[in-house]
Amino acid sequence: MNGVNSMTTDISIIMGSDSDLAAMKAAMEFLDEMGIGYKVQFMSAHRTANDMAEHARTARAQGYKVIIAGAGGAAHLPGMTEAFEEASVPVVAVPIKTTTMGGLDSLASILQMPPGRPVGTMAINGSKNAAIYAAQILAVSDDALAEKLRAFTDRMADEVRAKNVKLEKLGWKAYLEQMGVL
Amino acid sequence: MNGVNSMTTDISIIMGSDSDLAAMKAAMEFLDEMGIGYKVQFMSAHRTANDMAEHARTARAQGYKVIIAGAGGAAHLPGMTEAFEEASVPVVAVPIKTTTMGGLDSLASILQMPPGRPVGTMAINGSKNAAIYAAQILAVSDDALAEKLRAFTDRMADEVRAKNVKLEKLGWKAYLEQMGVL
Amino acid sequence: MNGVNSMTTDISIIMGSDSDLAAMKAAMEFLDEMGIGYKVQFMSAHRTANDMAEHARTARAQGYKVIIAGAGGAAHLPGMTEAFEEASVPVVAVPIKTTTMGGLDSLASILQMPPGRPVGTMAINGSKNAAIYAAQILAVSDDALAEKLRAFTDRMADEVRAKNVKLEKLGWKAYLEQMGVL
Amino acid sequence: MNGVNSMTTDISIIMGSDSDLAAMKAAMEFLDEMGIGYKVQFMSAHRTANDMAEHARTARAQGYKVIIAGAGGAAHLPGMTEAFEEASVPVVAVPIKTTTMGGLDSLASILQMPPGRPVGTMAINGSKNAAIYAAQILAVSDDALAEKLRAFTDRMADEVRAKNVKLEKLGWKAYLEQMGVL
Amino acid sequence: MNGVNSMTTDISIIMGSDSDLAAMKAAMEFLDEMGIGYKVQFMSAHRTANDMAEHARTARAQGYKVIIAGAGGAAHLPGMTEAFEEASVPVVAVPIKTTTMGGLDSLASILQMPPGRPVGTMAINGSKNAAIYAAQILAVSDDALAEKLRAFTDRMADEVRAKNVKLEKLGWKAYLEQMGVL
Amino acid sequence: MNGVNSMTTDISIIMGSDSDLAAMKAAMEFLDEMGIGYKVQFMSAHRTANDMAEHARTARAQGYKVIIAGAGGAAHLPGMTEAFEEASVPVVAVPIKTTTMGGLDSLASILQMPPGRPVGTMAINGSKNAAIYAAQILAVSDDALAEKLRAFTDRMADEVRAKNVKLEKLGWKAYLEQMGVL
Amino acid sequence: MNGVNSMTTDISIIMGSDSDLAAMKAAMEFLDEMGIGYKVQFMSAHRTANDMAEHARTARAQGYKVIIAGAGGAAHLPGMTEAFEEASVPVVAVPIKTTTMGGLDSLASILQMPPGRPVGTMAINGSKNAAIYAAQILAVSDDALAEKLRAFTDRMADEVRAKNVKLEKLGWKAYLEQMGVL
Amino acid sequence: MNGVNSMTTDISIIMGSDSDLAAMKAAMEFLDEMGIGYKVQFMSAHRTANDMAEHARTARAQGYKVIIAGAGGAAHLPGMTEAFEEASVPVVAVPIKTTTMGGLDSLASILQMPPGRPVGTMAINGSKNAAIYAAQILAVSDDALAEKLRAFTDRMADEVRAKNVKLEKLGWKAYLEQMGVL
Repeated sequence: MNGVNSMTTDISIIMGSDSDLAAMKAAMEFLDEMGIGYKVQFMSAHRTANDMAEHARTARAQGYKVIIAGAGGAAHLPGMTEAFEEASVPVVAVPIKTTTMGGLDSLASILQMPPGRPVGTMAINGSKNAAIYAAQILAVSDDALAEKLRAFTDRMADEVRAKNVKLEKLGWKAYLEQMGVL
Repeated sequence: MNGVNSMTTDISIIMGSDSDLAAMKAAMEFLDEMGIGYKVQFMSAHRTANDMAEHARTARAQGYKVIIAGAGGAAHLPGMTEAFEEASVPVVAVPIKTTTMGGLDSLASILQMPPGRPVGTMAINGSKNAAIYAAQILAVSDDALAEKLRAFTDRMADEVRAKNVKLEKLGWKAYLEQMGVL
Repeated sequence: MNGVNSMTTDISIIMGSDSDLAAMKAAMEFLDEMGIGYKVQFMSAHRTANDMAEHARTARAQGYKVIIAGAGGAAHLPGMTEAFEEASVPVVAVPIKTTTMGGLDSLASILQMPPGRPVGTMAINGSKNAAIYAAQILAVSDDALAEKLRAFTDRMADEVRAKNVKLEKLGWKAYLEQMGVL
Repeated sequence: MNGVNSMTTDISIIMGSDSDLAAMKAAMEFLDEMGIGYKVQFMSAHRTANDMAEHARTARAQGYKVIIAGAGGAAHLPGMTEAFEEASVPVVAVPIKTTTMGGLDSLASILQMPPGRPVGTMAINGSKNAAIYAAQILAVSDDALAEKLRAFTDRMADEVRAKNVKLEKLGWKAYLEQMGVL
Repeated sequence: MNGVNSMTTDISIIMGSDSDLAAMKAAMEFLDEMGIGYKVQFMSAHRTANDMAEHARTARAQGYKVIIAGAGGAAHLPGMTEAFEEASVPVVAVPIKTTTMGGLDSLASILQMPPGRPVGTMAINGSKNAAIYAAQILAVSDDALAEKLRAFTDRMADEVRAKNVKLEKLGWKAYLEQMGVL
Repeated sequence: MNGVNSMTTDISIIMGSDSDLAAMKAAMEFLDEMGIGYKVQFMSAHRTANDMAEHARTARAQGYKVIIAGAGGAAHLPGMTEAFEEASVPVVAVPIKTTTMGGLDSLASILQMPPGRPVGTMAINGSKNAAIYAAQILAVSDDALAEKLRAFTDRMADEVRAKNVKLEKLGWKAYLEQMGVL
Repeated sequence: MNGVNSMTTDISIIMGSDSDLAAMKAAMEFLDEMGIGYKVQFMSAHRTANDMAEHARTARAQGYKVIIAGAGGAAHLPGMTEAFEEASVPVVAVPIKTTTMGGLDSLASILQMPPGRPVGTMAINGSKNAAIYAAQILAVSDDALAEKLRAFTDRMADEVRAKNVKLEKLGWKAYLEQMGVL
Repeated sequence: MNGVNSMTTDISIIMGSDSDLAAMKAAMEFLDEMGIGYKVQFMSAHRTANDMAEHARTARAQGYKVIIAGAGGAAHLPGMTEAFEEASVPVVAVPIKTTTMGGLDSLASILQMPPGRPVGTMAINGSKNAAIYAAQILAVSDDALAEKLRAFTDRMADEVRAKNVKLEKLGWKAYLEQMGVL
């Protein structure tokens, strides 16, 4: 299942279960926006350990340049993908928020990797940033993509400024009313 | 490396690195005391993922009845051993204390396993209890061992009572002095 | 109150109050699925301390092979059951999620048992895993049950793979729509 | 083992093990200072559960008016003493600092008692305050003791004021030097 | 505002604001059930510091034997009431759950009193236990009240046992259905 | 966008995004009540870093005497505003509550500034106090404002007292009913 | 006890006990460096509540423009000083690190003040920043002091740059050796 | 200051102060081992904000492909470097352990970046992994480096296996003795 606007599949997006799909959605949307190809798969470190190991071992051979891995609870997917990898594809990890420990369990499980096996951890539920970070990694050797990312950050700044113009014009009370808060 | 007083090797003790060996020592000592056979191995989920998976897959075939796994930080060893196991050997896990997060990282990584893949977690650095628990599991179908364990708990109670007799006799100040505190 | 498909009652499931029953439900369902006999009881360490002590003392004599204990807050039930036990029945503990401290109180109360008195702790609200773990303990000396558990883990893997086939076919947007999210 | 200056033994001081004795020392010293009679005992909820239960059941009959209980880790002693008590002797609890979780485990285990079974919790390692609080409870119906406690708080205030006079005279640098810090 | 069934007003219940009244309700209900007289007042350590100090200074003179104080956030009411008190009335504190830090802020603010000024802390939102504990303090010199409290704990045990009888009869599925869960 | 009743604009209120506006509302309301002039702007440390730096550098030159900065998550706005400031305008910071870590992330990011660059941190979501604190800073050299603030605190005390009168009259049950709780 | 180089005493520095003096030292040193007058006093909210209240009530009348308050544990001094103040002197608070809870208790006790009574909280043990912040408050209406503070921040930047020059020259290994680390 | 064995300077290593240098040492050592060129600089987000911003803006133009940023406390360096960057150089962040909050402050400050500005976070003090991760990023388009990294992970596995051979030979007691523990 590739992203819509690309010829190659640079990024593998994996997650522990389909209950993580909504939290990971923003990653796919951003990659679509940038025209970066990706494949999404469910891949449970605990329920399909062999499939997970096989995916990791063959990642570079399959042409993946970055792996984005989302997982919650005792979140072993990002670290074990790193552990089974044989050719150093960077793993970008998204700790998924959990109902019992709020994602602090996911975070600790993912972040505290021992020396030798790194994982680049994003904020809890930070799937959009995982995709941006993966794009930055690709952009290290792709000036056109770097330019696209620069344009994206410019648009973000412009959005904040546009809101300020509106705030200046309306005043904060009317602004809040338009947001449906006041 | 078998425990000294036994013919069989019922328990596999694995840990992430030799820096965990001191924290796991109490497990081996208790099994020696009970005369239960075991084998100790270093087995890093992150550095020797394939060895770890192989150990898990063949555990029951090798005759292990219980696996005791100690690990710290992003502690994936107990959960991934459970995940790669093919025949339901119970995993008893010891979260090892860490210098950066005090073992709360180890604990969260180990404890919060998803439905389907259980691990029995002990206190942080609770290696002695891991061994006792493993012995209790063996004792489910071994009345002689159950009797030994009962005698062990009786001795623990007697030790507390002996200390009380001494406290009664000495008074708390002299007792503390003998402990080298006061 | 025995599970439906069995002749013996191998497992005692106790919990602090009937408000824990919903959180413990998954344990009973799994044991039913495996055909393992059990008995469920309310047993408050604080409100019915004597009953709790009596249950623990007589557990092995009553034929129980494993005790599953769920408790929340200052969760003393699993540890005190272990403490009053006289013949080493393994206690599998489920820390119940609480409204004030999210179950971290339950977890600390249960997990941090002193050397000599182990309790095998599951994830917060991890009642299904408690039942699976209890089954693994029984399977140590029961090859047929071990085979059943292996089949259960195979089914879990197949479910993940089936979801992947569906994801491949639908694409992630349609998949999310079918989940009612997008 | 009674306190030195009294005829009756109003307070029972119990603790999980002799390793808690140093942390509990300040309680005995304060009771000695106030001339309140007490008895100190080791009483492990986990290793001597029956002794603990017996002590709790007979506390009022033995003439105890308050029980001070210190415990660490999965600290069940205060709550279970309350649970086994049959005649409502107030339990004042001291969560003992632990090496693995800093006493937060002790605190959660003690504090979060369910409705129906209260324990009055002090600060971590707050054994002196446990003794003062026990004295306040006795002072509810003892005006002379209330007067003694008032004098004690006056002395505390005077000590602070005396230090201020010294600080005013020396200046903060010389004051720190005298403390051996600067 | 006295409790309904009593001649004297033994207990002063204070809380930081009327937003705490719902959380403190269970205290008043229990004291009514026991026939213990009390007075309820709002008393903000921060907004009405002088009133708070005055209440504390005169508490014993007004005839109060125990003060129950509920407070949330930077919860200074229990500790400052203790600090301004001149004659050692025991303070029983209830840390109120907060929306931002879940009551851990309230708890730390109340619990960690320095040596010399104790407060007996209950569970977060543990207002019922505050009332029971206050009653236990009164019962130290009141055998009739001690007897009432024993009867209360007996009723609690009977309620658990009655639920067990019902569970035995219905089975856990029907029991859950009656609770409206299954 | 100035506050309504003033001639000068003493206070700059900035926040990371318009999603913080509702949480910051109480600040603007209090400044309006006191007749203190302010300007509100969105200013993202991450999305409009240059604008943020420019605002900080020119703050004193623009006549601002205090900056109130609200931010959530990796909340860099208050500290970086302090860092880019060239003339020592005090920064009063409001850590905004977050959905993933409850505002503890915001708090740690804001509070733990290194020696040399202070920020005055308020409670999580404490925007009203930020405004009061800013007013106190202005009142250091403005006796009339100090008098206004004193009157404000008097009104707060009177409100608590009025509630007490009502509570005395109604009793706690009727009071709760009027609050819609009982 | 005034700072050495000044005619007026603008700042009152208070702390809970002389054990806090070492942690507060950096505040006095910075004020000395800036030539700002101050007075240091021990002032326990719990042991000398009346003195604390009196200091707060008369702070403005005594000519204090800012109060710096350091406190640990159930740290009530900053908030109660704010509460007893009658004329809005800003309180800058330093949560002191504690041995049992690492200062998180101090922090929560100080930070989470209710709407109406603000305290400006610094980092744990952040006494130097408290002094800088107090100076910034004075500098709101004192251009010469603002200039001094700007010069101070310039010096800080120069120190970092000087270290960079040294690092460039030595290389990181030699640099670490000179620090005594390598 | 370039690494010793390389012609280009692909990686910029920055840290908040020279007190972070020891914690960051392992990064430089690994890059030296791999023959990857780097430059190390002190760069305080708070003390040299302009230098930090300038470094970030010109990073890609200077030829840096990855930035490694270590910072502690209110750790704004990684996130603000990302914020000021104009051409998407990936930032790999190392939260430095702190004495007051153990590095949890550093972690929260770094990790919880808002959507749009990602930072790849390593374990607390995980500087070696930061360097390995940076190397993995370079290896995305450098097969020779990928091969080097694979060889490095093979060596790690071999080290674990060699320790196992030694453990098998010596037994755990002798092994611990050789480590100087037993």
